[in-house]
Amino acid sequence: MERKPVLYMYYRSSSAARVSIALHYKGIEYEPRPVNLLQNEQLDEAYVSKNPSALVPLLIIDGCELSQSVAILEYLEETRPEVPLLPRDPAQRAHVRAIVGTICCDIQPLQNLRVLKTLPEEQRPEHARSIIARGLSVVEAMLEKTAGQFCVGDEVTFADCCLVPQLINAHRFGVDMGHFPHICAIEANASKLESFNRAHWTKQPGCPTELLSGPIQADS
Amino acid sequence: MERKPVLYMYYRSSSAARVSIALHYKGIEYEPRPVNLLQNEQLDEAYVSKNPSALVPLLIIDGCELSQSVAILEYLEETRPEVPLLPRDPAQRAHVRAIVGTICCDIQPLQNLRVLKTLPEEQRPEHARSIIARGLSVVEAMLEKTAGQFCVGDEVTFADCCLVPQLINAHRFGVDMGHFPHICAIEANASKLESFNRAHWTKQPGCPTELLSGPIQADS
Repeated sequence: MERKPVLYMYYRSSSAARVSIALHYKGIEYEPRPVNLLQNEQLDEAYVSKNPSALVPLLIIDGCELSQSVAILEYLEETRPEVPLLPRDPAQRAHVRAIVGTICCDIQPLQNLRVLKTLPEEQRPEHARSIIARGLSVVEAMLEKTAGQFCVGDEVTFADCCLVPQLINAHRFGVDMGHFPHICAIEANASKLESFNRAHWTKQPGCPTELLSGPIQADS
Repeated sequence: MERKPVLYMYYRSSSAARVSIALHYKGIEYEPRPVNLLQNEQLDEAYVSKNPSALVPLLIIDGCELSQSVAILEYLEETRPEVPLLPRDPAQRAHVRAIVGTICCDIQPLQNLRVLKTLPEEQRPEHARSIIARGLSVVEAMLEKTAGQFCVGDEVTFADCCLVPQLINAHRFGVDMGHFPHICAIEANASKLESFNRAHWTKQPGCPTELLSGPIQADS
């Protein structure tokens, strides 16, 4: 009997959220398994043996242990293409992947906890804000040429799976979103879809309930 | 008449080298066009209008302007599959892309000039060394399960296109390679291939000739 895929995730991880959105969008049922990064559970020997990077996400699917969110997105697209997350045209696909690369290589790694920890505490919010704002301005300029209802045309793609979770941090660190009309429109369109809503950080296992009753408007 | 692809690059850019290796490996003739990052030529208005990220590489091909090295690799694979750089099996492809993600998201962005510039000068080499060493230890552990002559099996893939240029910086910052036997073996195997040699930084236009007569052994 086919076992349900297992997604090792952390409720605040934008990288895990990319995969979670894609799974929901493609209608793939899975079992989320929280890895508490603040308690360093990602360093447990059993986890590292499955995922040497000691990062989330990790997806167990089809008997394989798959790490790295973008690699997982590509795998899901290759093995479950029925509900596509890439356009057919190679140039359009390249535009999708260029937006993905901008978010996953040029924004997210430079503003995550691992980097922020190397800075004095009082400098962290401004550093994160500035990295995210600069990165989003690049994405906004790319969207100028490619956007429809979503990042590339009118269908959801990998680019939206990556952009929307990154915006959680943009809001969290107080990035002025007024400069990014395309991004804001895409965020609003995504918020109407069940797949994005089900993957929202407030709905993930492991999300502390006290965060849900506090001032989360800026995050959601 | 079909125009030759144009690759905007910088001789020291490991991201540009990934694409350069792939182009050579697939036998695609191209025209390299140096963008001097030290002289901020990437900020020229004409360049930014083509590539809002103001980064290299940028590949002009088939009438498209393509940015982000991994997006470009995928495009080349989709449009020029005759000499493949990905295995056929989806799980193997995912392993290739997981190594790519580890290098392109978790190593390269954290050790490049843009990040190093935020640190006091005396801390930069140790910071870069430590980021690269930690990242390569993850790659080495992944290779334990996947490596043959190259990163995943016995054929060159995207993973090798990304790993080998990253090693230039590993050598440059004095990372102790003794911990990474698989990586060293792959580097040695790649060094026997014309595609990797033609893409070597010392052979790129814009490489200052004084560097070639100096102590470059540690870099090559």
